[in-house]
Amino acid sequence: MINKLVIFGVGLIGGSLALALREAHFCKTVVGCSRNAVHLQKAVDLGVIDSFTLDPAEAVRDADMVLLAVPMGAMGHLLQQIKPVLPADAILTDAGSTKGSVVAEVEQVFGADFSRFVPGHPIAGREKSGVEAAIPDLYIDRRVILTPLPHTDPQATAKVEAMWKATGALLERMPVALHDQVLAATSHLPHVLAFALVDTLLNMPQREDILRYAAGGFRDFTRIASSDPVMWRDICLTNKPAILDVIAAFQHNLGEFAAMIDAQDGEALHNRMAKAKQARDNYVIAVGSTG
Amino acid sequence: MINKLVIFGVGLIGGSLALALREAHFCKTVVGCSRNAVHLQKAVDLGVIDSFTLDPAEAVRDADMVLLAVPMGAMGHLLQQIKPVLPADAILTDAGSTKGSVVAEVEQVFGADFSRFVPGHPIAGREKSGVEAAIPDLYIDRRVILTPLPHTDPQATAKVEAMWKATGALLERMPVALHDQVLAATSHLPHVLAFALVDTLLNMPQREDILRYAAGGFRDFTRIASSDPVMWRDICLTNKPAILDVIAAFQHNLGEFAAMIDAQDGEALHNRMAKAKQARDNYVIAVGSTG
Repeated sequence: MINKLVIFGVGLIGGSLALALREAHFCKTVVGCSRNAVHLQKAVDLGVIDSFTLDPAEAVRDADMVLLAVPMGAMGHLLQQIKPVLPADAILTDAGSTKGSVVAEVEQVFGADFSRFVPGHPIAGREKSGVEAAIPDLYIDRRVILTPLPHTDPQATAKVEAMWKATGALLERMPVALHDQVLAATSHLPHVLAFALVDTLLNMPQREDILRYAAGGFRDFTRIASSDPVMWRDICLTNKPAILDVIAAFQHNLGEFAAMIDAQDGEALHNRMAKAKQARDNYVIAVGSTG
Repeated sequence: MINKLVIFGVGLIGGSLALALREAHFCKTVVGCSRNAVHLQKAVDLGVIDSFTLDPAEAVRDADMVLLAVPMGAMGHLLQQIKPVLPADAILTDAGSTKGSVVAEVEQVFGADFSRFVPGHPIAGREKSGVEAAIPDLYIDRRVILTPLPHTDPQATAKVEAMWKATGALLERMPVALHDQVLAATSHLPHVLAFALVDTLLNMPQREDILRYAAGGFRDFTRIASSDPVMWRDICLTNKPAILDVIAAFQHNLGEFAAMIDAQDGEALHNRMAKAKQARDNYVIAVGSTG
């Protein structure tokens, strides 16, 4: 149970969390805060939040749970604004796709032994965004990864876990660095590849024929190239080392495929492709419909 | 109307063509030929073909339309077997995913001015394969690309076009080289990327966590890595120059993304991604549900 939940950045993610917690009767009150009064009023009208303020210091007064769902570029300034007035027992948490960078931001403002920040990453989304797209069941059976630090208060972590569990989410924990590496491989790299594929095709002389004949495989493969470029720019900027590592590993691998094709090594190609097929088929079986 | 259609290789593609033409009452008789009598008997039992033979020369006797749907590796030998006995007015056609290589194979056996070969590529498929997966409506609203050569008899092309139209397919024509380049970009490259992505992830030290946390984006992106490795090996071997070209273009593009990430150039990243998103969104609108 949360007394006063504050959400900085009431979009799809924060809005859906608020709606889910409302259905679970988990919060006495939910306050939204951002710099857009029109947008926040809409969130009130939609029943997503109970009230709003444009003043971060006022927002966190008497708050026990604070969700930071603002773009990474705005994080540092926001943390500076709330630090002086954040109640001593309040818990800070976030919902960003990369963890190392936000941990560094919080550390810079609150100090290296600040124990009340619980980094979190709900792995959920919709093609639409914004508070109008928020739905209460967004997190049902979705994974939420928490990455508490060695010095994070276990009770704070437990409270963030309980909050997410109330939305129907499945909770997991990982170290910060592993999270960023795993997400780089499974989410960030595929997105970069999709953007790069579309970009490559756009620049080919046979562009018009290519776009006409692009078939179902192209559609699936590039679906994620319709993702929000602002969000993905920020992910690339905030997970640079891990993403560059996986890109390099991928480029090496793709180079090996090209070499096999160049050498017309049918057996090696077949073996590599058969192995990939088997791994992917096993993965689909293992994760079923929650994957 | 076809008098005697011969299908070499009665699998999903050839079998579905036969079923569609049966429904359209387009052929007097359909004969299957391969080296597997058990398989061919099954095709008869399933009502896909009327009869079969294991002897290619016997198969093409009195045939007016011959569909070559065998693996590329078997094509040369098969062509040698049917050349001496192929009726003068018979039409040869195929259904392979690459056109330059089969054109070369036919040219090698039949000569450079053989006018009765109409290269074709039905862009259709299912995740299942084999004659048991054949269905009569596989080609409805699917594109079939014909790539007649300058010396191909226009009447032969017209007859192949009529045959495919009877299945509900949408016919298009392209030059051979353009076909291979366009398919390299829109189909072959995405498949190689999907295989390479799965392969990359399999080889990372965080492999187990990676496979556990791979989310929906990974599933979509790698769906085509569950494709038949035999077929894809053959595609890579038979479309080598075009595929190597697009891989090189893609690697260059991916390198540019990596450089932007390394330089933390948020604006350039955003612009590239926004451009890709817009192109892909336009593409989805343009092709609708047939894409």
